[in-house]
Amino acid sequence: MSQPAREVKVAIAGATGTVGQRFICLLASHPYFRIVSLNASPRSAGKSYREAVKWKQPVPIPKQVLDMTVKTCEVDQFGDAEIVFSGLDSDVAGDVEEGLRKAEYAVFSNAGNFRRDPLVPLVVPLVNPSHFGIIPHQKETLGLNKGFIITNANCSTTGIVIPLHALEKAFGPLETVMVTTMQAISGAGYPGVSSLDILDNVVPYIAKEEEKIEWELGKILGGLSDDLKEFDYHSKHPMKVSAACNRVPVVDGHLECMSIRFARRPPPSPQQVKDALRAYYSEAQKLGCPSAPEQAVYVHEEADRPQPRLDRHFQNGAGVNVGRVRECKVLDIRMVVLSHNTNIGAATSSVMNAEYAVAKGIV
Amino acid sequence: MSQPAREVKVAIAGATGTVGQRFICLLASHPYFRIVSLNASPRSAGKSYREAVKWKQPVPIPKQVLDMTVKTCEVDQFGDAEIVFSGLDSDVAGDVEEGLRKAEYAVFSNAGNFRRDPLVPLVVPLVNPSHFGIIPHQKETLGLNKGFIITNANCSTTGIVIPLHALEKAFGPLETVMVTTMQAISGAGYPGVSSLDILDNVVPYIAKEEEKIEWELGKILGGLSDDLKEFDYHSKHPMKVSAACNRVPVVDGHLECMSIRFARRPPPSPQQVKDALRAYYSEAQKLGCPSAPEQAVYVHEEADRPQPRLDRHFQNGAGVNVGRVRECKVLDIRMVVLSHNTNIGAATSSVMNAEYAVAKGIV
Amino acid sequence: MSQPAREVKVAIAGATGTVGQRFICLLASHPYFRIVSLNASPRSAGKSYREAVKWKQPVPIPKQVLDMTVKTCEVDQFGDAEIVFSGLDSDVAGDVEEGLRKAEYAVFSNAGNFRRDPLVPLVVPLVNPSHFGIIPHQKETLGLNKGFIITNANCSTTGIVIPLHALEKAFGPLETVMVTTMQAISGAGYPGVSSLDILDNVVPYIAKEEEKIEWELGKILGGLSDDLKEFDYHSKHPMKVSAACNRVPVVDGHLECMSIRFARRPPPSPQQVKDALRAYYSEAQKLGCPSAPEQAVYVHEEADRPQPRLDRHFQNGAGVNVGRVRECKVLDIRMVVLSHNTNIGAATSSVMNAEYAVAKGIV
Amino acid sequence: MSQPAREVKVAIAGATGTVGQRFICLLASHPYFRIVSLNASPRSAGKSYREAVKWKQPVPIPKQVLDMTVKTCEVDQFGDAEIVFSGLDSDVAGDVEEGLRKAEYAVFSNAGNFRRDPLVPLVVPLVNPSHFGIIPHQKETLGLNKGFIITNANCSTTGIVIPLHALEKAFGPLETVMVTTMQAISGAGYPGVSSLDILDNVVPYIAKEEEKIEWELGKILGGLSDDLKEFDYHSKHPMKVSAACNRVPVVDGHLECMSIRFARRPPPSPQQVKDALRAYYSEAQKLGCPSAPEQAVYVHEEADRPQPRLDRHFQNGAGVNVGRVRECKVLDIRMVVLSHNTNIGAATSSVMNAEYAVAKGIV
Repeated sequence: MSQPAREVKVAIAGATGTVGQRFICLLASHPYFRIVSLNASPRSAGKSYREAVKWKQPVPIPKQVLDMTVKTCEVDQFGDAEIVFSGLDSDVAGDVEEGLRKAEYAVFSNAGNFRRDPLVPLVVPLVNPSHFGIIPHQKETLGLNKGFIITNANCSTTGIVIPLHALEKAFGPLETVMVTTMQAISGAGYPGVSSLDILDNVVPYIAKEEEKIEWELGKILGGLSDDLKEFDYHSKHPMKVSAACNRVPVVDGHLECMSIRFARRPPPSPQQVKDALRAYYSEAQKLGCPSAPEQAVYVHEEADRPQPRLDRHFQNGAGVNVGRVRECKVLDIRMVVLSHNTNIGAATSSVMNAEYAVAKGIV
Repeated sequence: MSQPAREVKVAIAGATGTVGQRFICLLASHPYFRIVSLNASPRSAGKSYREAVKWKQPVPIPKQVLDMTVKTCEVDQFGDAEIVFSGLDSDVAGDVEEGLRKAEYAVFSNAGNFRRDPLVPLVVPLVNPSHFGIIPHQKETLGLNKGFIITNANCSTTGIVIPLHALEKAFGPLETVMVTTMQAISGAGYPGVSSLDILDNVVPYIAKEEEKIEWELGKILGGLSDDLKEFDYHSKHPMKVSAACNRVPVVDGHLECMSIRFARRPPPSPQQVKDALRAYYSEAQKLGCPSAPEQAVYVHEEADRPQPRLDRHFQNGAGVNVGRVRECKVLDIRMVVLSHNTNIGAATSSVMNAEYAVAKGIV
Repeated sequence: MSQPAREVKVAIAGATGTVGQRFICLLASHPYFRIVSLNASPRSAGKSYREAVKWKQPVPIPKQVLDMTVKTCEVDQFGDAEIVFSGLDSDVAGDVEEGLRKAEYAVFSNAGNFRRDPLVPLVVPLVNPSHFGIIPHQKETLGLNKGFIITNANCSTTGIVIPLHALEKAFGPLETVMVTTMQAISGAGYPGVSSLDILDNVVPYIAKEEEKIEWELGKILGGLSDDLKEFDYHSKHPMKVSAACNRVPVVDGHLECMSIRFARRPPPSPQQVKDALRAYYSEAQKLGCPSAPEQAVYVHEEADRPQPRLDRHFQNGAGVNVGRVRECKVLDIRMVVLSHNTNIGAATSSVMNAEYAVAKGIV
Repeated sequence: MSQPAREVKVAIAGATGTVGQRFICLLASHPYFRIVSLNASPRSAGKSYREAVKWKQPVPIPKQVLDMTVKTCEVDQFGDAEIVFSGLDSDVAGDVEEGLRKAEYAVFSNAGNFRRDPLVPLVVPLVNPSHFGIIPHQKETLGLNKGFIITNANCSTTGIVIPLHALEKAFGPLETVMVTTMQAISGAGYPGVSSLDILDNVVPYIAKEEEKIEWELGKILGGLSDDLKEFDYHSKHPMKVSAACNRVPVVDGHLECMSIRFARRPPPSPQQVKDALRAYYSEAQKLGCPSAPEQAVYVHEEADRPQPRLDRHFQNGAGVNVGRVRECKVLDIRMVVLSHNTNIGAATSSVMNAEYAVAKGIV
């Protein structure tokens, strides 16, 4: 079991933002992480959290942070935290996270800035925590003792990469992935999407989202070299990925219609695919990470599931829902994937990554 | 020009339903069709239209039908109409439409019952009015003088088949079509989709919809034999079609993310595709059918268009909007298609088909 | 403390409906109620619950009921339950509930059929459980030993009657209540409101709803005669009530804008009103009913709260949220009230009533 | 008839904003107003309109403005326009409009800055164009020849003041108005309301909105002194007004539940109220203003109307819809009012005011 003997002090950078609020919800009742610092923009600094935040969660602000004083994101403002969870916007995340790493903090970032950095692992905790293996090389390269950065994936990538990895483990490499997303508004932060743009509407475009999916899948599904110094980006088995991303009037929960082709011929049947998804059990689960779901991939049999409003809260949003697994008339298998974009698609993944790191002694 | 010297008397079967209401809106101000009969279920018969209908259109009931007495769908209740537009539900449409044909009415049906009938043309007026060519054979086979049935396509098929046909005309046969739809609630009629199923939600399933798209494309895009007696269902160039259908919280307007592969190598570029779509000019337009749009396919250049709420009313919903034409990393070309599902996707297509038939002397 | 030594067996009539599903969610993890019978229409009878139900809750079906066999609502089908919770539709609730009472069941009904019955208490558990006092008279009048019916209030009444009662307790009788409601779609059951009626829309009418509010407030806020045989319907202090009811595109949570006038002059100030609401502590809370909220009325200070999506889940939907307490330019005080219509507005009230009855030895 | 012999040149200040876009839609096809200048912020200036605008209307940009060059709002940038329609935000409207007036432009403003100015008429064209009578005094006081400012009312005021005025004309002064609004998101401009704030939600607060309604009704419904120099603010018959304002997830159309009390006893019956509303015919209609509706107040008899989505487009959004006229148990009469907030509630009112001014020779 992964429960550490000690409590681990954590800070939240970008604590007043949408992702920061989710971090607070998850960490306020965490078995061993303890929030010691809330950091945000200079505009918020000096205020109590309750004054600084425009709280948008469907639960009240946890009492323990109500009167904590928000500090800036200057590197000397994070106190004795060991871990910093970053929910910063990408326009400021780069500098702040780099500074924190240099100051020997373990940074678990939800921002996109370092995802393509060849030293930084892009980890979906239910998929590739093995990529933590590059951390010693990252620290060594930068001459650091404890400081490092790890990132989690973009929310629309996270949802599909979990079942895709489960299938590669069971049936060997994928050759083709086509996906059309229907993404929730919360994925754009606050104020994010204008209501005039999305009420009674769908917007068939999300800036840079398709490129993220098409690129990130390769890094996450690929391996790490034997010397633990380089990612292979799935290059041994080149994979074609095509994504079309849409914003829909849904509060939380990204739904993705996906069709895939395996390298192996004949491909597995829909029943074999469902069996493999149900059987998938990740290392984060084995280690007993407190935020890990009981079932990584829940497979629905009903014709019309999963649905965002009905299924996004299942397992606290920490797993992935799959439904409508069937043959595809063009590729091999079609399915529908639902993931809670601000839980497993964002804050929950960061926290689970940190739990994994603690369990493995990386932090 | 197609304007006939005479006015043409028409009846509407299923006049109180959602599609029937659209027929009334379109026909009330039509240059030469004149509504002479409103027919519906026995429950409505005998009442004035204003009493019988639960009107759900965003314009008031046209004055000319307010006090018309609704009649049943018995075959002797359609008076001296030459044409019957059928907006009946499929559970009753089969018998009623068959009876009307036998009674020598020209039936333009929006229902699905006869779409797969080898004698009945499945006509999208901006695509394949040439299929009207089978009508003499249909009449002869059934020993009829004037009576026949033609149907229009399912709404989600109609949207994509128009640009697909334009592209086949320009670049030769398609090999593969993959499509993920995001369909409006009005497509399910009234009361149709429960608000509890769709508010803050997406339902990744519409019964039989995927099969309809996968099958109808072949009949519409295919040809008619030289003797005008048989459809070829695109069999000379077998086409693989895979569809995934979703219901989204949008009132009107089906949005479809589509990816296609041409037989021809190399395939046309995105720019060539856009040029061909813009240049496409259908026979219904050439004939001056009053309901035909100026532009069959309007191609958007903005990154985030078309959008249902902003673009569905363009050209009175009689054309199709296309956007985001780009290369696909898996097939050749990806694009987004928007069509107004109760206009070009339903009633407008039937009316345009009838206009075509009048212009060609088929009625 | 109200925890009984024993477990109490309960049945759910209308177990497959929307309210029935909420009952199951609440009762599946209840400390002492144990579900022994699920009863529904003949159409569902004989099936397992998982087969019979079209489950619409945002949590999976509780495991303990998945494979229970659904039975009919015939009076001999409720086994050894002591309590029957009724979530039946009003068109069948009358006969079934009357039969169950005659068969000596304690019936806690969510339906409206008996609300105006002079022998049946209309109890909002946070307001008037004292009305249980009429139960002996009900049983005696009908020659029953243990059987009785109690009902809870209509959902839009429940939300406002809790703060109104708190204010009458603090400041004496109310003279006038004006209320405009904005009610969630879940209040209409499933399939209930058609999405075509409510997407991008408000419907300014809910059949019979205004009459219910205008009438029920008097029965609930009024007293019981000294001989415990008659309700006084607030007749000592006649109260004028005017309601306007609207359906809005919100899934759960009724928001109500209310303005009130007290008999007492001068009236209390907004601050006094807020203090009194916060101080209100009901008997159900004192008795430790497991479903009672910690705070019966939570008063918000933020200018723009309460809001349905953000505040409806607070305290598991068992309390009421009040905000914007301010002077009214016409009457005395204006405020906004939010209540979770299927929790405190329906199933939670019934369960809390039953907890009260158990605690008091009435069951 | 009011059709002037000449065309009148007009400019639009704030041409790229939401209200500016509506002005363009209305004016592009106007019988005698001709757009000669589009003015906006320095950020837009120098670009063609198509480049400068983020167009959000459900019709394409009118061709005549597509390639017009947008200019700044400096006072020398409005060319030879006689009239300037201002759709500017209130943070810049004050200075710009004042400068334009000084430069001898006739300014028809949709902003709130001058509504409380004792020299500036607050005109709802279907109600109080007689207030134009103060214009000579305004010009004289400021030493101007042709320049003046007139404003139209806040959108939520406009909807109710039209029926209220019709009723005062028929039955004498009102004593009390209580109103609860359910306002569309378009009332807040673009980007305006965040989708995270309004999807599956209602926000029971709109900053300063209640004060606007409570104050503006008095100025509009009141008279002008005999010397045409002072407004009386309805002071001869003091009127109590209490408003509660809510934002709902509706794109266009403010719905308002209103209850009123007349000074006269006994008050008119619901039938008399409906008759008076239907009979009301404003001076703008009599003068034949091209934007005036045929029917100023349309009274619905159906129990559940008016509804925003179904009725907002009626008469091009230039009239007001009233429904559910009935007795109020507290005041005299309750009713529901629907108005299209960006048409009669904004741009259409300004245009109709200008038409009135042209017809009367004020411009």
